[in-house]
Amino acid sequence: MNPQIPTEDPIDRERFPAEPWRWVETHYESGDMGATEATFSVGNGYLGMRANPEEGRPAAEHGTFINGFHETWPIRHAEQAYGFAKTGQTIVNVPDAKLIKVYVDDEPLLLSMADLQAYERSLDFRDGILRRDLIWQTPAGKRVRVRSTRMTSFTDRHLALMTFEVTMLDDEAPVVISSQIVNRQSGRDEYNLAASESADPRKAGRLQDVLEPMQHWNSERRMILGYRCRNSHMTLAVAADHTVSSESTVEELISTEPDIGKKVFRVEAEPGKPIRITKAVAYHTSRSVPVRELFDRCRRTLDRVRDNGFEHYERGQRAWLDKFWDTTDVKIGGQPELQQAVRWSMFQLAQAAGRADQFGIAAKGVTGSGYEGHYFWDTDIYVVPALIYTNPALARNALRFRVNIVDAARRRARELNQRGILFPWRTINGEEASAYYAAGTAQYHIDADVAFAFAKYADSSGDRGFLYREGAEVLAETARMWADLGFWREADQGQEFHIHGVTGPDEYTTVVNNNLFTNVMAKYNLSRAASLLREMQVEAQADYERLAKKIELDPAEIDEWEACAAGMMIPFDDHVGIHPQSEDFLERELWDLASTPDEYRPLLLHFHPLVIYRYQVLKQADTILALFLQGNQFTPEQIKADFDYYDPITTGDSSLSAVVQSIMAAYIGYKKLALDYFNGGLFVDLADLHHNTSDGLHIASIGGVWNALVYGFAGMRDYQGDITFDPRLPRDWTELEFSLIVRDTTIRVRLAQTAMTFRAEGMDGVEVGVRGQRYELEPGIEVVVPLAGQGPNVRVPRAATKGALRSDGSVITSNTPSMTSWDTSAVDSDDLPNRVPDDQQKGSL
Amino acid sequence: MNPQIPTEDPIDRERFPAEPWRWVETHYESGDMGATEATFSVGNGYLGMRANPEEGRPAAEHGTFINGFHETWPIRHAEQAYGFAKTGQTIVNVPDAKLIKVYVDDEPLLLSMADLQAYERSLDFRDGILRRDLIWQTPAGKRVRVRSTRMTSFTDRHLALMTFEVTMLDDEAPVVISSQIVNRQSGRDEYNLAASESADPRKAGRLQDVLEPMQHWNSERRMILGYRCRNSHMTLAVAADHTVSSESTVEELISTEPDIGKKVFRVEAEPGKPIRITKAVAYHTSRSVPVRELFDRCRRTLDRVRDNGFEHYERGQRAWLDKFWDTTDVKIGGQPELQQAVRWSMFQLAQAAGRADQFGIAAKGVTGSGYEGHYFWDTDIYVVPALIYTNPALARNALRFRVNIVDAARRRARELNQRGILFPWRTINGEEASAYYAAGTAQYHIDADVAFAFAKYADSSGDRGFLYREGAEVLAETARMWADLGFWREADQGQEFHIHGVTGPDEYTTVVNNNLFTNVMAKYNLSRAASLLREMQVEAQADYERLAKKIELDPAEIDEWEACAAGMMIPFDDHVGIHPQSEDFLERELWDLASTPDEYRPLLLHFHPLVIYRYQVLKQADTILALFLQGNQFTPEQIKADFDYYDPITTGDSSLSAVVQSIMAAYIGYKKLALDYFNGGLFVDLADLHHNTSDGLHIASIGGVWNALVYGFAGMRDYQGDITFDPRLPRDWTELEFSLIVRDTTIRVRLAQTAMTFRAEGMDGVEVGVRGQRYELEPGIEVVVPLAGQGPNVRVPRAATKGALRSDGSVITSNTPSMTSWDTSAVDSDDLPNRVPDDQQKGSL
Repeated sequence: MNPQIPTEDPIDRERFPAEPWRWVETHYESGDMGATEATFSVGNGYLGMRANPEEGRPAAEHGTFINGFHETWPIRHAEQAYGFAKTGQTIVNVPDAKLIKVYVDDEPLLLSMADLQAYERSLDFRDGILRRDLIWQTPAGKRVRVRSTRMTSFTDRHLALMTFEVTMLDDEAPVVISSQIVNRQSGRDEYNLAASESADPRKAGRLQDVLEPMQHWNSERRMILGYRCRNSHMTLAVAADHTVSSESTVEELISTEPDIGKKVFRVEAEPGKPIRITKAVAYHTSRSVPVRELFDRCRRTLDRVRDNGFEHYERGQRAWLDKFWDTTDVKIGGQPELQQAVRWSMFQLAQAAGRADQFGIAAKGVTGSGYEGHYFWDTDIYVVPALIYTNPALARNALRFRVNIVDAARRRARELNQRGILFPWRTINGEEASAYYAAGTAQYHIDADVAFAFAKYADSSGDRGFLYREGAEVLAETARMWADLGFWREADQGQEFHIHGVTGPDEYTTVVNNNLFTNVMAKYNLSRAASLLREMQVEAQADYERLAKKIELDPAEIDEWEACAAGMMIPFDDHVGIHPQSEDFLERELWDLASTPDEYRPLLLHFHPLVIYRYQVLKQADTILALFLQGNQFTPEQIKADFDYYDPITTGDSSLSAVVQSIMAAYIGYKKLALDYFNGGLFVDLADLHHNTSDGLHIASIGGVWNALVYGFAGMRDYQGDITFDPRLPRDWTELEFSLIVRDTTIRVRLAQTAMTFRAEGMDGVEVGVRGQRYELEPGIEVVVPLAGQGPNVRVPRAATKGALRSDGSVITSNTPSMTSWDTSAVDSDDLPNRVPDDQQKGSL
Repeated sequence: MNPQIPTEDPIDRERFPAEPWRWVETHYESGDMGATEATFSVGNGYLGMRANPEEGRPAAEHGTFINGFHETWPIRHAEQAYGFAKTGQTIVNVPDAKLIKVYVDDEPLLLSMADLQAYERSLDFRDGILRRDLIWQTPAGKRVRVRSTRMTSFTDRHLALMTFEVTMLDDEAPVVISSQIVNRQSGRDEYNLAASESADPRKAGRLQDVLEPMQHWNSERRMILGYRCRNSHMTLAVAADHTVSSESTVEELISTEPDIGKKVFRVEAEPGKPIRITKAVAYHTSRSVPVRELFDRCRRTLDRVRDNGFEHYERGQRAWLDKFWDTTDVKIGGQPELQQAVRWSMFQLAQAAGRADQFGIAAKGVTGSGYEGHYFWDTDIYVVPALIYTNPALARNALRFRVNIVDAARRRARELNQRGILFPWRTINGEEASAYYAAGTAQYHIDADVAFAFAKYADSSGDRGFLYREGAEVLAETARMWADLGFWREADQGQEFHIHGVTGPDEYTTVVNNNLFTNVMAKYNLSRAASLLREMQVEAQADYERLAKKIELDPAEIDEWEACAAGMMIPFDDHVGIHPQSEDFLERELWDLASTPDEYRPLLLHFHPLVIYRYQVLKQADTILALFLQGNQFTPEQIKADFDYYDPITTGDSSLSAVVQSIMAAYIGYKKLALDYFNGGLFVDLADLHHNTSDGLHIASIGGVWNALVYGFAGMRDYQGDITFDPRLPRDWTELEFSLIVRDTTIRVRLAQTAMTFRAEGMDGVEVGVRGQRYELEPGIEVVVPLAGQGPNVRVPRAATKGALRSDGSVITSNTPSMTSWDTSAVDSDDLPNRVPDDQQKGSL
C-alpha cells in the first residue's frame, strides 16, 4: 500500500471532533498551521482567504487570492528551444484585508505565545462562516474574550465580511484594535523564507514586488487602496468599511499609505462590555479597467453593505448554501467521521467553484498559491463531473472558461504545428505556461478531457443549445487536432491510427507512443465530434453553418474523424493479457516499490526523471482512469486484469490517483481496497496526507470524492446520458444518500444494503438502470429496487501470476507486488455472481 | 541534399585567394565580421584571441578567452526536478588586451569607415602569426600605412605578442597610439545586443559584471590588472609591456584604473619614419591563487620577454609549428582550394589543443563563447582520434582532463542512481551543466566515448603505462555504470542485455530504449574494460591491486561485464533489413525533408522538440557513427543498408554529421557524396555554412576533417591498433599524403591513384594491411603497394526500394528521398569488385 493511504481514521479527534456540519478545532496548535490555514480557509470561487489569524501572525503563508488575478513574467528556460512556453503566470497574493490586531494594555494577542483559557475555531458548512472564540489571559493576568467571524459572500463575490468582538471579562484595560489592509507582496513570514526556496516543482515560485501602488484614499470609516501588476497590468482595488459598537468611549483613527491602510479603535474597555467591530471588505479586479474605476466599484459594493446590513448577506449566504446542499449533500449512514469529511469536501467544491463564474477552477481553488494558481485538466475530469449532477450551472460556467480560451488554444496548436486547437496544459490567461513540456505540453490528452466534459455536461443536462453554440467548436477543433496529430499505419487488420510522442495522465512515463488513455479519449473525442456535427446538420443547421464557416470546416473532415476513431490503435498485449499504458510500457523494468523506503516518496522528489521514466512505475492512475471514463469500451475481464496489473505499481504520488483507484476497486469488488483508496482521497487535506496542504487544497481530489461515492460505491455509470447503477455499498455503511440532477429532474437516491430507493422531482420522469434492469422514475413516486446483493456480477478469475508479466511471457521477479493482503480476501465472494443478460455484460457492470 | 553542403567552392576567391600556407583576406568587409573574427583568430589552446581589429571597433564579438576560465551560476530551471544540473558554467570573456588604437590628426582609424588604399589580413599556418597591412587615407587626405602582427605563443602559453607600426607615407601629422587593456565584461558592441537575446540554445547566455577588479598597478612600461570571478572565485591577472621605436619624438603616458589600463604614445610623426610599438601581454589564471600571486607570475613572464626579445618567441613558435606540421600536415595533390582549407583546419587543431594541456578541448576551442566554452564528447570522438596519430602527447593531455574529473563523474553517477562514473554531458569544471537533460544528461554514451578514446590512444601509442595507471579506472568505472544501467531481458536466443531511457548522438530523437550507438559503444566499453583488467592481472599486478582496492572491485564484476557485452541487445529489423537507431525508431513517421523549405532549417530553431521527436529525422549521424567507430561489428552489407536508410533522413543540422557521413559514403563507394560531405565538413567555418561561426569555430568538425581524409579517403581502420587501409582517393586528387605515429614509429603515407607508398621512421617497424594484404614496414624502407583500383571490394546490391521501409514492410510514401542523383551513378562500378579473403570480409573493407 502506498504511504498516502491511511490505515485508520487519520484525524486527531480530540482536537478535531467529528461534527456533521462543521470542521472544528478545539485547541490551538501551530505545528500544522500551513495545513489548517487551507482547511479552514473561506472562499467563494472568486475571492479566497486563508485561515490566517486576525492578528496576522503566526502564519505559514498569509494568503488572499482572487481567481485569475495574476502576474506574468517571461519564462527563462535554462536551455531554450522552439515552442517552449514563453509566458509564466502566477496568481498574486493580493493585499491582506483580514488583519484585525488587538492590543490589551499595549500587549498584542499572539496565538502562538498567548495563555489561552479557551479556544475554538470552526468552519460551518451551512452558513459558510469561519468563527473563532477564545479567552486570553494577558501577561498582566487579565482575561479577555475575543470572538470573530469571517466569511466571503456567495451572493456578492467581491465581498468579505468580518466581525471582531473583544470583551474584558474581569478587569478594565486600554484596548486597541487595529484593522488593516496590508500589501505584503510575499505571503510568507520571514522564518519561512527557507521553505519557499524549496526545489519542489509543485510550489509556486516567489514573485516579488508585483503590485505597484496606484492610488489610496480614506474617509472616516472607509479606506481604499489600488494597485496594478507590473507586467500583466491587471488592476485591483480593495476597500474596507468599519463600524464599531461599544458602551465605552472609542477613539477612532484612519490612515492610508501606498502599501497599508489602518483603521484604529482606542477604547478604555470596561469589564463585561463588549467592543464589537464590523469590517466589510470589497475586492474588485480587472484585466484592463483603471484603478479609479475599480475604486468606484468598491464604493458601490460597500455602500450596499452599509445600506443592507451584515445580516442581509448572512441570510443570503445561508440561502445560497441551502440550495447548494439540497442537491450536493451526500449522506453516509453510520459513519460520522466520514460524513464530516465528505461534507467538508462538498463545501470546498462550493468554495472553489461557487462564484468562479467564467474563470477556471484552479488546482488549489482559491486556497493557496500551489501550482501558481493554474487551471489544469483537473477541472474538466475531476470537478466538472461532480458539478454536472449537483450544480449544473456551475459546471456550465467552468466549461465557458474553456470557450473563452479557444483562440489562445488555436494559436498554441499552430506553434506545435497542429491544426485545430490545443488547450494549454496549465494556464491562467489561456497561454501555455508549462515550463517542463514532457509532463506538460506533451499531455495532449487535455484536448479530449475538455471535449469529454462538454459532452458529459450536455448529455446529463440536456443543454443542447450550449453544446451547439459553444461546445461544437471545441469538439470539432479538438477532433481536428487529433486527426492531424496521429497518422495511419499498416497493421494486421488493416490500417490503424497511431498517436505518437504524447504523455498520458501518469507523469512517471512521458513522451510515449500510443498512450492508451490518450488514444481511448481521442477516439471518443473524434467520434463525439463527428456525431455532434451530424446531429447539428439536422437539428441545428444555422449553428452548423455558422461553425462550418468560422472554422472553415470541410464536411469530409467529419468522415475523416469517424475513420480515425474507428481505426484508433488501442494497445493490448495478448501475452500478458492487459492494455499496456503505452506501446512499449511492458518493455520497461519494474520498479520495486515494496523495497522503496517511505522516505523516498514521492519518487519525483528523490529521483531524476530519467531514472523514473525507465521503469514500470506510475505516479497516478492512467490506464485505470481510461477504464473508468470509457468503461463501456472494455470488458469486465479486461478491467480486472488491467487493475490487477497496474495497481501494485501505482505510487499514488499524485493526489489525483486515489479516488479513481477507489472507483475501479469498488467496481471489481475489492471492497477493502476501495475503502482504503476512498479514505486516501477523502483525507488528502484534512489529514495532510501528501504533506503539502499548506500550498492549498487538492480540489481535484475533492471533486473526486463525490465521484468515488457516486460512481464508486453507488456504482453509477452514465454513458451518453444513460444512467445506470451497480452499487457496492461498504458493509459498515448503513446507507448512502445523494441527489442527481438529470435533464432538469432531480433524482433523490438512497442506497442501503438491501435496496436502492429513487424519487424523482421535477416535471419529467427519467429512466435508470440498476444491475441490468430498467426503471422508469416518475416525478414524486418513490421506486424501491430490492438488492439481493451487491458486488461484481461477473466473477473473473484472478490472474494466475502474482507478479507482473512481461510481454514476452517472462515473469518479473525483481518486485513482488505487495497486494496479497487484499487481493484474495477482499473480493467478496458471497456477493457473487449474479448473471446478467449478454447485452449488459460489456462494461456496464 | 542538405543546405549545409556546398555544391561548389563556397569561398569568394577574389577576397580569400587559395594559398597553400595562409588564410588571407585581400579586402575588408564587415558583413561577415563575426565569422572572420573566428576564422582569423589566434590561440594556443590556453589563450585565444578573436580577430578583432586592433582598434577594437567594429566587432561582432570582442573576444579573449582562456580555456577553463569560467564563472559559475545557479541554473534556474523554469520547472525544477530532482537531479537536474545545478551549476551553470560559462567561459568568461576576459579583459581585452588586443587593443591598440591609432589616431592621426586626432581622427581614429575605423575600418568600417576608413578609405583603405590597400588592405591585407593573413593568418600564417607556419608561424602562427596574424598580420594586417593596410594603407589608410585619412579624412584630411593623408596616407598612413598601418602594419600589425598578433600571435599567441605555443612555447609560453601565457603569452601573446603584438606589434603595431604606423608610417605616415607623404605628410607629417600628430599620431596617437593608445594601447589598452579593457575589462569590458560583455563581449558585444551595443548595436549587437539584440542578437545576444536570441533564442538559439547553442549560444552562450550573457553574463554581466562577472569580474571583480581586485588590484591594478603600472610602471613606466608595464601595466597589470587583476580580477576575481564573483561566484567561481577564479582569479586572473593580465599584464602588458610596451616598447616603442621611432625616429620622431615620442611622449609616453601610462595609467591604470580598475577596468582599464592605457599606455599612450604621442608622436609628431614625420613622413617615411615608422613608429613601431611592441606589446607583450601575459595572462595568468587560477582556481584559487590570489591575484597578487598572479601579478608575480605575469611579471616573470614579461621579464623573460624583455630579456629574450620577441624574436626568440617567434623562432620558438616556428619551431613548435614545424614539429607540428611534420606529423600533422596532410597534402592533397591538385586541389589548392582544399589544400588551404585542410591546412587551416589542421592549424586550428593546434590552436585548440596545442597548449590546452590538461584542460579539455572546448566545442569552440578558444575562439568564441558558443556552447558557453563547454567540453563535450567532441574531444573524445572527433578530436582525440586525430591527435593520437599526429600529436600523441596532445591526445594524452586531452585524456588527462577526463582523469581529472573522475571524482565529479562519480558523484554525478550517484545522483542518477548509478554505480561507477557518469561523465557530464557538458562541463567546464567537471560538474554536469546540461540544463536540458533529454539532449544532455540522457546521452550516457559519453561514458563509452571516453572509454573508447582511452583504448584507442593506448592501442595506437602503445602507452600501456598510462592505460594501467589512469585509463583503467575510467574503463572499469564506466563499464560498471553500463552493467548497472542496463538490465537483462528474456529473448528468443536467451537473455539479452537492454539499455533503456538514453539518448544517442542524434538529438532529434531523445530518451529511447536500446539506442544502437549506445549499445554498440557500451558493448565495446564493457568488453575492453574486462580485457584490460584481465591483462593487468597478469601484466600489471600492482596497478590492478591498487585500482581494485580504490574502487572496491569484485573480480566477479569482470565476468559480469563480459556477460553484459556478450548479451548486449543490438537492435536489427529483419523486415527492413537495417539497424533501427533505437528500438521503436521505425515506428515513427518519416519527416518529409524534401518538402521542408530551407528557411525551416535547422529544424531545432523552427519546431518544438515534441514535433521533431515524433519523426524519423536525424540531426546528425547516429547509427552511421557506430558503423564507423565499431565497423568490425558489422558486415559491409549491413553498413550499406543502414547508410542508404539513414542518409536521406539526416538533416546535418549538427556540424558533427558531415565528416562521418563522408567517411561512410567513401567506404560504400558513393564517391561524389563522400566528397560533398567532406566539403560540408571542411568548409563549415571558412564558408560559415551553419551561420554560426561567429560563435566560434566547430572544433569537432575540424578534427573530423583529418578523420575524413585518413579514415574516409585513405580508408584507414585501426581496430585494436591493427592498421589497415582500403583507400578511395577521389579521382581529381592526384595524391593524398599524411603521417601516422604508431607506437613511436612515424609512418609517411602517400596515396596516389595507382599506388600507396609507405615509409616508416623510427626504431621499430610496423605492420599494415592494404586491401587484405599485410605489409611489414621497416624503418627507412619505402614500401610501394600498387593499387589495381580503389573502392568497395564487395558489391552490395542497392536496396530495391528507394523510399524507406517500415518494420511492417509498408513503404513510406510521404517522403521520397532526394538522393537519386548520386545513388546509382555515384557508385563507381568500374572500380569493382576485388574479391577479398573471407577472413577479411567482416568490416575491414
